[in-house]
Amino acid sequence: MASWEENVRKAVPYTPGEQPKIANIIKLNTNENPYPPSPAVLKALRGTDVEYLRRYPDPKSFDLTEAFARLNGISPDRVFAGVGSDDVLAMSFLTFFNSDRPVLFPDITYSFYDVWADLFRIPYRTVPLDENFRIVKEDYYGENGGIVIANPNAPTGIAMKQSDLRDIIDRNRDVVVIVDEAYIDFGGESLLGLTAEYENLLVVQTLSKSRALAGMRIGFAAGSEKLIRYLNDVKYSFNSYTMNDSAIRAGAAALDDREYFEYTRGRIIATRERSKKEMEKLGFIVTDSRSNFLFVRHKEAAARDIFHALRQAGIIVRYFDKPRIDNYLRITVGTDEQMDTLFAFLASWLKKEKA
Amino acid sequence: MASWEENVRKAVPYTPGEQPKIANIIKLNTNENPYPPSPAVLKALRGTDVEYLRRYPDPKSFDLTEAFARLNGISPDRVFAGVGSDDVLAMSFLTFFNSDRPVLFPDITYSFYDVWADLFRIPYRTVPLDENFRIVKEDYYGENGGIVIANPNAPTGIAMKQSDLRDIIDRNRDVVVIVDEAYIDFGGESLLGLTAEYENLLVVQTLSKSRALAGMRIGFAAGSEKLIRYLNDVKYSFNSYTMNDSAIRAGAAALDDREYFEYTRGRIIATRERSKKEMEKLGFIVTDSRSNFLFVRHKEAAARDIFHALRQAGIIVRYFDKPRIDNYLRITVGTDEQMDTLFAFLASWLKKEKA
Repeated sequence: MASWEENVRKAVPYTPGEQPKIANIIKLNTNENPYPPSPAVLKALRGTDVEYLRRYPDPKSFDLTEAFARLNGISPDRVFAGVGSDDVLAMSFLTFFNSDRPVLFPDITYSFYDVWADLFRIPYRTVPLDENFRIVKEDYYGENGGIVIANPNAPTGIAMKQSDLRDIIDRNRDVVVIVDEAYIDFGGESLLGLTAEYENLLVVQTLSKSRALAGMRIGFAAGSEKLIRYLNDVKYSFNSYTMNDSAIRAGAAALDDREYFEYTRGRIIATRERSKKEMEKLGFIVTDSRSNFLFVRHKEAAARDIFHALRQAGIIVRYFDKPRIDNYLRITVGTDEQMDTLFAFLASWLKKEKA
Repeated sequence: MASWEENVRKAVPYTPGEQPKIANIIKLNTNENPYPPSPAVLKALRGTDVEYLRRYPDPKSFDLTEAFARLNGISPDRVFAGVGSDDVLAMSFLTFFNSDRPVLFPDITYSFYDVWADLFRIPYRTVPLDENFRIVKEDYYGENGGIVIANPNAPTGIAMKQSDLRDIIDRNRDVVVIVDEAYIDFGGESLLGLTAEYENLLVVQTLSKSRALAGMRIGFAAGSEKLIRYLNDVKYSFNSYTMNDSAIRAGAAALDDREYFEYTRGRIIATRERSKKEMEKLGFIVTDSRSNFLFVRHKEAAARDIFHALRQAGIIVRYFDKPRIDNYLRITVGTDEQMDTLFAFLASWLKKEKA
């Protein structure tokens, strides 16, 4: 190692789901929306004015935060926008978790939390989910440096009752509680309304999933004015202009088209519920997912084998080689047609395996 | 202060130049390009495919880093892309400056450097420029935790000789040396070629100025494969997908249009040189700027007074209320027409002041 390397921060990065360039694959591995974004988005992008390209964008991304605020009936001063919810969450970890006590989050959850904690040298402790992959609220009563809960949780898809989450927040008024609602639009109960009541509650959402805008990188945090001010101070100490002109336009347009949003998320929820039944018929154990993915294991076949067989057949799902979940697959809810192809393949493959 | 606020990171943010919404102003305060970006950029954005919006973008932004690499005749493995050079620099501070020894940069330079150092709790020491606002290379010979030099420097516009910069790097092989070339295309000598020779040299550039893409937020770092790998590991520990689909398209298109680039930067350089002479005729002392801005003080009138008078007249320039430079103005080079309006106003205002 060269001497200059001694003081380099060595990070073990998060591994994102692959984005293969192969054509004709069925891509059910990164929880993208199978439907395109609202037609208003493309219209907004096509209306790009060169004047807005040569100038720095609005550092407050006001058109974007205002659209989110309006949709949720809150003041824009209580909204923060970032380059996807990953940016919002990374900034939040940096801003709010500066205690010597450990930050708490489940052992099975979004796998970026421990990566951020390591990156920023934040002490943390993972709290095991129970045997049914549920969060036990009492486990979050002790002293800690902050709490992060994904609701619905990933990759299980399981949602928590609002009363249980409220209980956790009630018992943790002295730290910041982050609720990551990346998948909330597919069936969970949002805590956004509670941010008026709890000054220390930060709710994080994204346009990547339910608004089909993963390619534009837009995430939000909603919280008290104080929380948002602290977050903005750190953001303005990092990069004044994180949201580019296209993201501001596209995001505002997507948020404003409520009808299209209701229609597409309704379709995804319907496909998910039908898919749960189909998967059960095929011998899978299926969690009660309230997200746009299924989390499943087969009663007989190994997840790893199914994963490889699907891949061979051009159907890509997500497999996590991690303790407790290494016999599970996370399968994004695609279109009905894509799911039918999946079921047909699985039926035939499982039959062959059994023979 | 509520108890949860105790462990919040309190940051004193950078103050960006204002982006007023007033129409008909002449905006010479944030070093934006007065010309629009290459027509290829708008074409690329208008060709946006919804399929790329609903999917996560390529985490490597390969089309973008490859365009930058091709332009500069280096391997894409030696290029990192970020959300403007601010993102690239912030990530670089986080990655490379983890020593107990202070990082060194000039007392008068881009005012984000100390903000990042404070944010990430990096020890630093500012090194005074000489009385002519020049960097004294010998001041960077001592033990340190890293070096950051903007070349040309901001807000002075003064460029350093390549041999002097090389000397600094030669004497600092044990730390990472960052050269911030935000304004390099307007007349400085780039060190990009030296990155093949010095494993610890990181050169940072941006498309915000010379490519007129401030609104899209695109910056680059070029360095050894090792440096770029370390930087990518931290980036992937922060946010896997920082560059959205529009930025990747727009940036690649801008980089590919060399002819337009040469034409517009040539015009800006010509206007700058003419403007220096005009300002001198008006009684200003003008630095030898190699950037797209002038850094000036008047022999008699106070900078603050000129700043306010210009503002009243709808001409916005940048004034820094900081030691050593509080009698200077930083004036972005606009179109010839905008500059003529500026000179005419100054001539008449200075005449009135004298009377």
